[in-house]
Amino acid sequence: MSESIRIGVLGCGRIGRWHAELIARRIPGLALSQVFDVRRESADEVAGGLGAAVASTPEELIEADDVDVVAICSSTDTHVDLLVAGSAAGKPIFCEKPLSLDLAEVDRGLAAVGDAGVLLQVGFNRRYDPSHREVRQRVAGGDIGDLHLVRITSRDPAPPPIAYIAVSGGIFCDMTIHDFDMARFVTGGEIEEVYATGAVRVDPAIGEAGDLDTAVVVLRHADGVLTTIDNSRQAVYGYDQRVEAFGSGGMVGSENALTTTTILRNASGGQQSTLPDFFRERYEMSYLAEWEDFATMVRNGGPSPVDGRDGREALVAGLAAWRSVREGRPVKTSEIT
Amino acid sequence: MSESIRIGVLGCGRIGRWHAELIARRIPGLALSQVFDVRRESADEVAGGLGAAVASTPEELIEADDVDVVAICSSTDTHVDLLVAGSAAGKPIFCEKPLSLDLAEVDRGLAAVGDAGVLLQVGFNRRYDPSHREVRQRVAGGDIGDLHLVRITSRDPAPPPIAYIAVSGGIFCDMTIHDFDMARFVTGGEIEEVYATGAVRVDPAIGEAGDLDTAVVVLRHADGVLTTIDNSRQAVYGYDQRVEAFGSGGMVGSENALTTTTILRNASGGQQSTLPDFFRERYEMSYLAEWEDFATMVRNGGPSPVDGRDGREALVAGLAAWRSVREGRPVKTSEIT
Amino acid sequence: MSESIRIGVLGCGRIGRWHAELIARRIPGLALSQVFDVRRESADEVAGGLGAAVASTPEELIEADDVDVVAICSSTDTHVDLLVAGSAAGKPIFCEKPLSLDLAEVDRGLAAVGDAGVLLQVGFNRRYDPSHREVRQRVAGGDIGDLHLVRITSRDPAPPPIAYIAVSGGIFCDMTIHDFDMARFVTGGEIEEVYATGAVRVDPAIGEAGDLDTAVVVLRHADGVLTTIDNSRQAVYGYDQRVEAFGSGGMVGSENALTTTTILRNASGGQQSTLPDFFRERYEMSYLAEWEDFATMVRNGGPSPVDGRDGREALVAGLAAWRSVREGRPVKTSEIT
Amino acid sequence: MSESIRIGVLGCGRIGRWHAELIARRIPGLALSQVFDVRRESADEVAGGLGAAVASTPEELIEADDVDVVAICSSTDTHVDLLVAGSAAGKPIFCEKPLSLDLAEVDRGLAAVGDAGVLLQVGFNRRYDPSHREVRQRVAGGDIGDLHLVRITSRDPAPPPIAYIAVSGGIFCDMTIHDFDMARFVTGGEIEEVYATGAVRVDPAIGEAGDLDTAVVVLRHADGVLTTIDNSRQAVYGYDQRVEAFGSGGMVGSENALTTTTILRNASGGQQSTLPDFFRERYEMSYLAEWEDFATMVRNGGPSPVDGRDGREALVAGLAAWRSVREGRPVKTSEIT
Repeated sequence: MSESIRIGVLGCGRIGRWHAELIARRIPGLALSQVFDVRRESADEVAGGLGAAVASTPEELIEADDVDVVAICSSTDTHVDLLVAGSAAGKPIFCEKPLSLDLAEVDRGLAAVGDAGVLLQVGFNRRYDPSHREVRQRVAGGDIGDLHLVRITSRDPAPPPIAYIAVSGGIFCDMTIHDFDMARFVTGGEIEEVYATGAVRVDPAIGEAGDLDTAVVVLRHADGVLTTIDNSRQAVYGYDQRVEAFGSGGMVGSENALTTTTILRNASGGQQSTLPDFFRERYEMSYLAEWEDFATMVRNGGPSPVDGRDGREALVAGLAAWRSVREGRPVKTSEIT
Repeated sequence: MSESIRIGVLGCGRIGRWHAELIARRIPGLALSQVFDVRRESADEVAGGLGAAVASTPEELIEADDVDVVAICSSTDTHVDLLVAGSAAGKPIFCEKPLSLDLAEVDRGLAAVGDAGVLLQVGFNRRYDPSHREVRQRVAGGDIGDLHLVRITSRDPAPPPIAYIAVSGGIFCDMTIHDFDMARFVTGGEIEEVYATGAVRVDPAIGEAGDLDTAVVVLRHADGVLTTIDNSRQAVYGYDQRVEAFGSGGMVGSENALTTTTILRNASGGQQSTLPDFFRERYEMSYLAEWEDFATMVRNGGPSPVDGRDGREALVAGLAAWRSVREGRPVKTSEIT
Repeated sequence: MSESIRIGVLGCGRIGRWHAELIARRIPGLALSQVFDVRRESADEVAGGLGAAVASTPEELIEADDVDVVAICSSTDTHVDLLVAGSAAGKPIFCEKPLSLDLAEVDRGLAAVGDAGVLLQVGFNRRYDPSHREVRQRVAGGDIGDLHLVRITSRDPAPPPIAYIAVSGGIFCDMTIHDFDMARFVTGGEIEEVYATGAVRVDPAIGEAGDLDTAVVVLRHADGVLTTIDNSRQAVYGYDQRVEAFGSGGMVGSENALTTTTILRNASGGQQSTLPDFFRERYEMSYLAEWEDFATMVRNGGPSPVDGRDGREALVAGLAAWRSVREGRPVKTSEIT
Repeated sequence: MSESIRIGVLGCGRIGRWHAELIARRIPGLALSQVFDVRRESADEVAGGLGAAVASTPEELIEADDVDVVAICSSTDTHVDLLVAGSAAGKPIFCEKPLSLDLAEVDRGLAAVGDAGVLLQVGFNRRYDPSHREVRQRVAGGDIGDLHLVRITSRDPAPPPIAYIAVSGGIFCDMTIHDFDMARFVTGGEIEEVYATGAVRVDPAIGEAGDLDTAVVVLRHADGVLTTIDNSRQAVYGYDQRVEAFGSGGMVGSENALTTTTILRNASGGQQSTLPDFFRERYEMSYLAEWEDFATMVRNGGPSPVDGRDGREALVAGLAAWRSVREGRPVKTSEIT
């Protein structure tokens, strides 16, 4: 392995470009060597700006000598095959969430990873947000005593295109999946039962696509902790991301930062700025820290800070949530197989 | 009716004393004329400090010429009989929540009130908190567009005595009942379905008394709005009371005020003061406004701003929550009869 | 002395009524026995609502058997004569600020108080504000190490009538005098030098009356601490009152509380409520605590928590500020005699 | 000129490295072509990491074909000679503050710039901080009516080395100079008079070097606005940077952001995180925006958003502040020549 870890990025859509840019410019010790996208012009554009080569196929990228690590940032339905290919090449893998929308497929991918003994980190970037991370650290450090309740509010600024929604796995597997992971991260306890309900309030077309745009979830964790989650696909005031933990010794919560700290006061009251627009503004620091931690993992030979099981458990919770909505009852995660 | 409205207070326990003091000293246009308590010495003590007379029986107070209005602040099991007696005397009534823990009893009391045509205001004081009230006003005024979600956090500083818990109706009818009313107040929409779950995390003795001390509730309102509530009997950092509404045009929420606005910053970070201890400190302004609104209602001859049906519906939600816990499923309020 | 301390209030204008109401209704252990005002109808109105007697002359009130304590709340030019009269009667005295606008007169009043050995508390209520008080306690407790800087922002919501301004002593002796006292209170150190400058920005009529409506003051304290003060007679967003202390170990500051804690967020940003209107809303708790401390002083026989010298030193600073403006230079308080 | 603007950075100390990194990696349309430092190894280190060439002399860099723009980030005493050299080369110049500590030298440098007609932007980065900038925009847009007062708090986390202090021009020309510029920026009005005072509270060695570490300044602007500034070389709680403007229609202020938004609440109160450590963390966005604005200026051919006169006026205020301290009186900026 060369001095810098050379990364090949598969997928040059919104999230792939973002990762490529961070890898190439912002993380000491990482280098972007190759990119691939099914739309060649996307790959060319990303590679051109960042000084990387363009691979003709995923396989070419995965097997290239100057690719130490494979970053899977392509569409969800391609993840498992790429996991299998990356494992076969014996290279450490970064994979965006969700691993797949099909649990059997996830298990096929994780089996390949496990059999090959390669390192895998799943892209639950929010674990690396300094504010949410401090919540977890306070809980883990006992600063709020025994944990009783967790409350997560997670609202996107605007819904994705309907075409995306149709293949997204729906709100619970596409959007709430981050919150399921956050609940596991903050509590340190597995999700045992999921009660979910929701509504179509933002856009009827979302309902016509079989999805919800507004949702509420209650989780019961193995150790008796209860988590509530509320989601919306459209918070017009910005990307609303809050996590709160409550226990016998107190509470700890991460609030939203605003785009500026400026306050105007006049006879009508006080005026603050808006929340950050979306994930690049809100979670930039989390992505930086995620890649730094990935680099550490690769250099140290593991273990993975966010491993395949983390990816699997969040999907199980998402599937349980959908069943809960369909059947109008709390669903145990053990029912999802 | 004399110039001031003369009020007789039934019950001189914690909440009765508080109301008596507010009536006697803080509300222009109200006067405290008589008090009664089954413990004569409690009545004597309250009356002595505030310049009121002591009645020997509830009936004596209710029928006294210098009592224009009856305030029922005694234990819950006595409320309905006193509602009936006050109605028979044809006097306006203030009654603390809950009206009763038995729905048939509530209906008996409300029938008496209705037949007599007397005015009744139920003591859901939190509706009068300026911050929560502004949440409602913003929602009603359309400032957040169509309402999608409501989120209520309501945590007491410390649990009541176990003896009280045993007769309290349990967490949902004693404590969450305020939040059910808040949900109806903020949304302006009836509760159609209740999903509740909970745990015993604070004190095993609460569980042995058949109650919960930690709870999460999801409400579905008639118009499709979803409300989440989380409760704890013991927030060691103070009385935590927050209400948030989210809609198509934005969100509006009431945060906790702190006991001081002072912030200390040193190398370890920033330190703020604690939250208010409990309801007298936190909700003083709501009690003042509640009595001012009561006085307005009496002077104008109604209508009641918080009427008998408000009292009934909150109890129905509490009973539905208990059934939801027992049966492990969402329960429609129409199932509670 | 009877069980309750019986207070006679001299002056039934805005501040006198306020004190009378607090004494009569809000402070356990205090009673309002008599009031006086040069406008008999003002005295009648206050006495009628609060159950007190009306004295025909200040002397009658001061010498009355049912007046244990004299509260001087009349216009500033009458303070010293009433201090002398109260001292002659040997009764504890509460006196509003400023003691006088004439330093020689202050000294005459304080000599009478001293010769008679009566207790005197000056009405610098802001010392009792819980948030400012916490600032002082943190400083005194060493929580910010050695004190370096103090920063006071003090802005009224609206200027007083021009007729009042003409006899007020001007902004430094009428308004900033509270901040001079706050600077002495927070630092625990005497004011050695005053640099003041200002402008007429709010209302030209204030300038025509020989006064300023906008001011900035820098104080050098005996121990080398520096204090900055900024004042305006008109903050349209409410009564702005902030105190901050900075030292080798950190900083501590009291922020403004808002009238509600509600925040609205929409696509334009966040909206908070206004600041409290004025001193009754903002400083109610300080007045309650001031009278409670006064009662403690009387019952314990002293010492005074805010004594005559505190009243004198704040006036000296105000006079030094005026000289600084006139002469365009920093002025030592030792120059004011 | 090539597609990207190719920048040569003179000086690879703390601030030069920072600029070089931003230019090379963070600003689309800028490229780092050459660097120079009197310590060759510093230049090598910076160039190596960022893919730039190392010049042997400043002249070589300034005259190089692949250097479109000269960025002067070397020690203050070298600024004017480099300004002159850059002007002679006819290239746009970015120059760090202060231009010089000697006003005659500043004038020599600006004359060269003016005679050559080259573009010059001075490195007052804080103007580009989004929060401070919003303060200025609100003032300029009339959102607080007529401006009356400005209040600037600016405290460094820790003092620089004593060796640096000795050549720094002292607190007013090294540190407060940013605040003088901020006062001019926010008010849009020239500084007419300066009153300054200060103390040595942080470290006696700073006093022995002839400097102050704690300072308070009052500015009178041409239009009658008053500005207060307070400075400390050592705020142990972090880099404290606040600007507030007050006027006839309200106030607007920029508060400190914290390193995280997490709050812990327990029985002792609430705990927040610290302030950002220093200028890289606190002002990263301002540096990015500064370079983006520089690029726009170069592409458009001007005008300069922060020009030579801005650099000169801030120095004049700093020199006036020193004279004010020495002479114990307010000093007019017209006295500084």
